[in-house]
Amino acid sequence: MSEESVEANVVVHVCTTCRAEGEALEPRELRSGARLYQALKQSRSAEDPVVVAVECLSVCRRPCTISFSAEGSWTYVYGDFPADADPGAILDAARLYARSPQGLIPWKQRPEALKKGVVARVPPLRSSTEFAS
Amino acid sequence: MSEESVEANVVVHVCTTCRAEGEALEPRELRSGARLYQALKQSRSAEDPVVVAVECLSVCRRPCTISFSAEGSWTYVYGDFPADADPGAILDAARLYARSPQGLIPWKQRPEALKKGVVARVPPLRSSTEFAS
Repeated sequence: MSEESVEANVVVHVCTTCRAEGEALEPRELRSGARLYQALKQSRSAEDPVVVAVECLSVCRRPCTISFSAEGSWTYVYGDFPADADPGAILDAARLYARSPQGLIPWKQRPEALKKGVVARVPPLRSSTEFAS
Repeated sequence: MSEESVEANVVVHVCTTCRAEGEALEPRELRSGARLYQALKQSRSAEDPVVVAVECLSVCRRPCTISFSAEGSWTYVYGDFPADADPGAILDAARLYARSPQGLIPWKQRPEALKKGVVARVPPLRSSTEFAS
């Protein structure tokens, strides 16, 4: 598999409904989540993981929320990102996820924001079904 | 697709590391999560979704935690289940998830525990990639 395809396999979902505490409901495009999404879209290059807006990741209490997922990898959900979180650092983390077997970034390599911000993780379907048999 | 295959496509992951507040670390098989997992394993019939133990779903603050996932469906993570939660009700919900397009159970049909206990959800990879293009 080429390096490009490893990273293209990863999707970074960004909840565009997330609001910081006290933030106005409208206009929706100024919500923290929507702004973080725009920053990520603008920062990514063609070889980077795909960045996709989602209406709601159902976390709500820990804005802004994002997730990393890829075929055959653990899905990770992370919260507590401010709207002005460094998009480059998030994309670096997504590339690290893309290159880690099953998306499991070794603890020592894991950026601080991912250590503290983890909301949940779910194993890949394929390995879990094997595990069940 | 037969009804059996729709349900066999779903995996219910159960975090066996989850402990209720104040619960002893050892023996591990008496932790709330491990007991909920055993109850689900014993309750499921051959046609039910697969039930798989996971060492950690990284939720920790909302024991016990479970997840529903299936190819092409949203992944849902739910918390706040006591060790003696009704395993039949959880399996009913997993069947409902299996039969709902993309795993999206209509709000009115959603069991109360799933409404209150949602920790996070992540879109299926396939639809999100389509959405991104």
